[in-house]
Amino acid sequence: MAPVQALLFDVFGTVVDWRSGVAREAAPFLARHGIAADAHAFADAWRRRYDPAMAAIRSGARPFTRLDVLHRENLLAVLAEYGSAPESIPAAEIDALSCAWHRLDPWPDSVAGLTRLKARHIIAPLSNGNVALLLNMAKRAGLPWDAILGAEVAQAYKPQPEAYLRTAEILGLAPGACMMVAAHNGDLAAARTVGLRTAFIARPAEHGPGQTKDLAATGPWDVVARDFLDLADQLERLQEPHVLPA
Amino acid sequence: MAPVQALLFDVFGTVVDWRSGVAREAAPFLARHGIAADAHAFADAWRRRYDPAMAAIRSGARPFTRLDVLHRENLLAVLAEYGSAPESIPAAEIDALSCAWHRLDPWPDSVAGLTRLKARHIIAPLSNGNVALLLNMAKRAGLPWDAILGAEVAQAYKPQPEAYLRTAEILGLAPGACMMVAAHNGDLAAARTVGLRTAFIARPAEHGPGQTKDLAATGPWDVVARDFLDLADQLERLQEPHVLPA
Repeated sequence: MAPVQALLFDVFGTVVDWRSGVAREAAPFLARHGIAADAHAFADAWRRRYDPAMAAIRSGARPFTRLDVLHRENLLAVLAEYGSAPESIPAAEIDALSCAWHRLDPWPDSVAGLTRLKARHIIAPLSNGNVALLLNMAKRAGLPWDAILGAEVAQAYKPQPEAYLRTAEILGLAPGACMMVAAHNGDLAAARTVGLRTAFIARPAEHGPGQTKDLAATGPWDVVARDFLDLADQLERLQEPHVLPA
Repeated sequence: MAPVQALLFDVFGTVVDWRSGVAREAAPFLARHGIAADAHAFADAWRRRYDPAMAAIRSGARPFTRLDVLHRENLLAVLAEYGSAPESIPAAEIDALSCAWHRLDPWPDSVAGLTRLKARHIIAPLSNGNVALLLNMAKRAGLPWDAILGAEVAQAYKPQPEAYLRTAEILGLAPGACMMVAAHNGDLAAARTVGLRTAFIARPAEHGPGQTKDLAATGPWDVVARDFLDLADQLERLQEPHVLPA
């Protein structure tokens, strides 16, 4: 395998447990406003609006809009879906819950794994999350990113090719010197199509006990690892030299 | 003083010693190619072309172009100025010297000061350097940035107002929650005009023994500090709480 200089990480589901974190933040809000909803089901419903919200931006029908804005729009929609009248809730409370995505906890191996990987590679998120979201999350959780990259910096949402290619170009690297790390086969397929290396990490608890998708690697990924520590082990075994750009 | 959540740093001259670093990288190149030039004078000549090179981009006459590209163009021009024929030199050697700006050493207080400041603030470069340049520099020098921001992410070169305002907006912060830290009064004046807080750190060796400008603060900056450790002391004395966004 040619040297991988940069490891680029999907974040929601791959680095952090969005479902538990959003449910934890939503529970007191739902109780306070008398909304009869299971907090995990509420998190799932909010998340279901995530991908469709980016469709208009991917198609060019809507100018690039950062994820914090889409999360807030989607929150208003999901509240309405649950029979709540969002206009009866103070805007500051909507704003605060809307930023629940800034306060997600990492999986148990994430911080230790990233810290090890950082010694030999550039590590950065390549997430659809915006810079402020990813930065606030990293400060709270101790994620030791070298840089905060992703959709907002590339001005394109994954899985658009530009999201991956512009990120490599910003780093001054060929796509093949970058490895996309994700718990989602679809993300890796899009990255591989435009020349990035790929690493799959199963996160079987991402969607809760009933998870049916992305339980295993389904493509010809360069590495399949149990977690970030196993990824570090495997990259070291592959004899990757210390390949930071001079 | 209202809480300062993010400290945004000028880099060339404020965090790193560009003149010594570029001279160190240029010296063997100049010797190898028989170019009769003092390496420090060569560094100064190269740097003199820095600001003019951004003028066409600031005016809109040229689309945004990252600094690595401008540094390479300026290197060819300064080599011609010294009577060398750049086309006689292998492109790989030009490329390598052109990236000397990725390999600059920090001032003695920079890493320790940034590490202290990072505990209570978001710390990020707000430099005209591009992302790859600043990231490679940080990996080599151990600069513990939370994110790599600046001209390339904002798509505007300082001192354009957009460089400062878009950076604050990307962070999700009001301009007044950001403090620009620089060894250059002009940078601080531009930042203050659009509402950022300001901190001046004198770097009297930036331009070598004959430095005449920016030896002292010349504006009403919020903080004037001897170095980054003194900046940390002063911000702590101002009773800044731990004000990371929740």
